[in-house]
Amino acid sequence: MAIKINLEKKVLTENDRLAADIRKQLDELHLVSLNFVSSPGSGKTSLLERTLGALNDELRIGLIAGDVQTENDAERLRRAGGAVVHPLVTGGTCHLDARMISRVLPEMDLETLDLLIIENVGNLVCPSSYDLGEVMKVVLLSTTEGDDKPLKYPGMFRRSSVMVINKIDLLGTSDFDMDRVKANARRINADLRIFEVSCRTGEGLDAWFDWLKGLVAEKAALASP
Amino acid sequence: MAIKINLEKKVLTENDRLAADIRKQLDELHLVSLNFVSSPGSGKTSLLERTLGALNDELRIGLIAGDVQTENDAERLRRAGGAVVHPLVTGGTCHLDARMISRVLPEMDLETLDLLIIENVGNLVCPSSYDLGEVMKVVLLSTTEGDDKPLKYPGMFRRSSVMVINKIDLLGTSDFDMDRVKANARRINADLRIFEVSCRTGEGLDAWFDWLKGLVAEKAALASP
Repeated sequence: MAIKINLEKKVLTENDRLAADIRKQLDELHLVSLNFVSSPGSGKTSLLERTLGALNDELRIGLIAGDVQTENDAERLRRAGGAVVHPLVTGGTCHLDARMISRVLPEMDLETLDLLIIENVGNLVCPSSYDLGEVMKVVLLSTTEGDDKPLKYPGMFRRSSVMVINKIDLLGTSDFDMDRVKANARRINADLRIFEVSCRTGEGLDAWFDWLKGLVAEKAALASP
Repeated sequence: MAIKINLEKKVLTENDRLAADIRKQLDELHLVSLNFVSSPGSGKTSLLERTLGALNDELRIGLIAGDVQTENDAERLRRAGGAVVHPLVTGGTCHLDARMISRVLPEMDLETLDLLIIENVGNLVCPSSYDLGEVMKVVLLSTTEGDDKPLKYPGMFRRSSVMVINKIDLLGTSDFDMDRVKANARRINADLRIFEVSCRTGEGLDAWFDWLKGLVAEKAALASP
């Protein structure tokens, strides 16, 4: 087992080095970057479709759509108005890593972007270990997955700065409890910023859009002293 | 990358060897074993609670409850009447492997069991690569996750023999289409046996219980020639 663990450590160290390079590059461009993580089917692509629909006229958003197989998500994002959408199919690998991102970025005309969003593979475990050079991770959790998930998958909730609780239109169809999920999440990460939304009905999304715009404006202010 | 890939191959080969030992051991005991896999929150534990509730008087069911963190699932299964429940906390690892199972089995009094169910970590990617010595994998998919998932995570659906579609009580609350999900799943695996259930309302569960009982009876018939 020792050789496996050492190699894993080496792979992660190499990933951290590449991620630091990416972070530096994006920071020099004053470009906000977010890494979207969640279980399969929590609604990452739906939230991005909604975000493009609301902000596409104001912000130029670049998207990297990570998937194990198929470019379906990238196609959905293009249909939703995404002008800079890059599919990133891992071909079986359970997470994105910094090397994959560093290969994609040169093709994305970063200077023209206000915001870069990376949609990770649907997996609540492995992507938590791989820094992609993002400013922060945004973890999605849908109400239909149960309010116990922050305790059962603590790594992801610990390493995320924001939690978006999606599918609040389905509250009441299960024993999911909003107070309990927040308490569970804050036990793992006291600083977590939380949004409650429904990508289906649109409820709660304005607060999310406003926060995103604020984040980009803050970074832009740094660019013009 | 070559060394990483070779090592991964070696780890998987070693896993396959251990899994073959487990399969032989369980087969000699004429013990049916199932490996439950799905995304987090699809309802693996709920289906097991229902199964214990319905079959606990007829079948002696042993359960291995795999989790990244917490023994919550094992506790839920004990409360649901599970007499032989073994928690298996991976401490961060994204899947169960044959070595973990082979360490747990000696503590489980296998001779007394009719059925062994292993609840894997909630992850639709990594557990597909690790044979645990089971007779078959059962993949759960809940209607709230979307009907595209078999195409996006084909490895898991290809390696499973059974797909249980859970949360059919929530059909109509999203654009999930039952015909489409079946077509998508059968594109990946034409032989997949499919059940449609709601662990909340109980709908469709009788067919699942009957199938499980049939599976155990078939194996028992082999034991008494």
